[in-house]
Amino acid sequence: MTTVSAYAATSADGPLTRTTVTRRDVGPHDVAFDIHFAGICHSDIHTVRGEWGGIDYPLVPGHEIAGIVTEVGSAVTKFTVGDRVGVGCFVDSCRECDACRDGEEQYCTGGGMVGTYNGVGRDGQRTQGGYSGAIVVDENYVLNIPDAIPLDKAAPLLCAGITTYSPLHHWNAGPGTKVAVIGLGGLGHLAVKLAAAMGAEVTVLSQSLKKMEDGLRLGATEYRATSDRDTFKELRGRFDLILNTVSANLNLEDYLKLLKIDGTLVELGMPEHPMSVPAGALISGRRSIAGSMIGGIAETQEMLDFCAEHDVTPEIEIIEPDYINEAYERVMASDVRYRFVIDTASLR
Amino acid sequence: MTTVSAYAATSADGPLTRTTVTRRDVGPHDVAFDIHFAGICHSDIHTVRGEWGGIDYPLVPGHEIAGIVTEVGSAVTKFTVGDRVGVGCFVDSCRECDACRDGEEQYCTGGGMVGTYNGVGRDGQRTQGGYSGAIVVDENYVLNIPDAIPLDKAAPLLCAGITTYSPLHHWNAGPGTKVAVIGLGGLGHLAVKLAAAMGAEVTVLSQSLKKMEDGLRLGATEYRATSDRDTFKELRGRFDLILNTVSANLNLEDYLKLLKIDGTLVELGMPEHPMSVPAGALISGRRSIAGSMIGGIAETQEMLDFCAEHDVTPEIEIIEPDYINEAYERVMASDVRYRFVIDTASLR
Repeated sequence: MTTVSAYAATSADGPLTRTTVTRRDVGPHDVAFDIHFAGICHSDIHTVRGEWGGIDYPLVPGHEIAGIVTEVGSAVTKFTVGDRVGVGCFVDSCRECDACRDGEEQYCTGGGMVGTYNGVGRDGQRTQGGYSGAIVVDENYVLNIPDAIPLDKAAPLLCAGITTYSPLHHWNAGPGTKVAVIGLGGLGHLAVKLAAAMGAEVTVLSQSLKKMEDGLRLGATEYRATSDRDTFKELRGRFDLILNTVSANLNLEDYLKLLKIDGTLVELGMPEHPMSVPAGALISGRRSIAGSMIGGIAETQEMLDFCAEHDVTPEIEIIEPDYINEAYERVMASDVRYRFVIDTASLR
Repeated sequence: MTTVSAYAATSADGPLTRTTVTRRDVGPHDVAFDIHFAGICHSDIHTVRGEWGGIDYPLVPGHEIAGIVTEVGSAVTKFTVGDRVGVGCFVDSCRECDACRDGEEQYCTGGGMVGTYNGVGRDGQRTQGGYSGAIVVDENYVLNIPDAIPLDKAAPLLCAGITTYSPLHHWNAGPGTKVAVIGLGGLGHLAVKLAAAMGAEVTVLSQSLKKMEDGLRLGATEYRATSDRDTFKELRGRFDLILNTVSANLNLEDYLKLLKIDGTLVELGMPEHPMSVPAGALISGRRSIAGSMIGGIAETQEMLDFCAEHDVTPEIEIIEPDYINEAYERVMASDVRYRFVIDTASLR
């Protein structure tokens, strides 16, 4: 085992503080890599604050991880020392259920995927995430980061990127389709870039027009305020697909009516309360409301390759580890354009 | 105009009584037919009782109508006198919107389909439904009833049949798929027969096991009580498609978890309150909840032809018109196996 520096939460309401965690020895199928950058995801904050269930502290968050390989196990075939690699939201899964065999490991039914943090690995040890100097992960759960994507900008693609790419891809966003993105935050701004790169016509639905200039620059052709009732009248029946990147309980009737016949609204975040869905808004146009969660390993690689080819990267603000707690407050206040990425050099 | 006998509601809380209504003269594109049978649909009851919005009385319900052509307009090409025909839930639509052009007239966005009753036709007259002796309908909204289907059994296919056929067809029920049907009533029993005829493996989810023998006879391979918590444990992750034929506010979290990854639960009825949908149950398996409403004219004809070919017909109880009010009470008490059909001979 090796010991590496990290930032960990030690309670639900205290700040994250500098500490150390251990990483397992490199097994035959493992890849060890130095972490260069780690993105801060909304769900890091929910998790460490215990809002998604009780957890054991200390906990090192971080599941948007990019770095450079330092050692590979004897049986590793996909990576060599010096490779630019990434790890997203999970580091293992059962590998035997239909979902795993279909490359949809995120929906593993054989016990569920093993989270990059707050999970329990095959070795029985609790997993600790990317706010640290290094990590050891089975090669089958490691991604190759194309040269065209800088490591700092690659990090947020591993969660925010795949979370938006996967539903766009699954529900066939592309030329001739009209896509709306609710919320222009960490997920939303990547959804806009990705949907536009896929050839779809993109509209942002945001509470206000504050970020309109950004939205249009990122690839949207229209940017509308949801505080304006006219938005819901004028865009009625417009969209094939709506991605809801906002983890809030919206008035879904309003949004469902923006869908065409056979349109789908996809929930990407977890609102606090169950959603209130009027059946009539679904029935009257054979509309669907669906959910989607990150993506499988093969699809995540596909997304990275797509981003490299189409020059899609997130807009980020790079911070030092000692700024994490302040960054958390700013994330909760939606005060970041559009993703914090921790430069973990001082933790290596 | 001609005058025909009918049964009409004259208030939201009074009984239906015998009266007369007028039918328009047969225009160039019209088909006039004697009504032989009319099914009683749950929505007839909701509508006449004003539960779906205020209505003008008197109102003649009935949108499951089967009969024999007595006269055709000069420009009619699809039908001749003596043809066995039917009319379902609508008698016109805008014919110009994308939905109408795509043969999905039920989702007409150009003002909406014109209901067979409680609608307003092109002539400005309120439409009156099938609890009567005859009707006049534009040929484009009239169905051909195959010889293999008796007229009395054809009637319920025009609403209950297409309401269940359309989602089964749209969501690809067939060999290799597992379909669950919630509720074994007018819709549910046809859903079971249709899904089985399509080759799917069918499970009925009913409150109790009271109708189990029927369910298995109709084509289900499994019949489970939803009052038994073990049902939800044992069937977890089982189904590709669940049709909810029950217009009640169910605990959807329980049912959504019965779906496989990428499975869909389709609402066919209109529960009184908005549905409470936990986002997690959707997100954790890319599941969808959707709605579906009857079907288009072409698809309804396809359904009738399918039923003729596969010997799918409803189980019915034939009644005289003076039994309608008692039948309504029995429908509300789920005391019918499985559809009342009015023999309208005495109204002709």
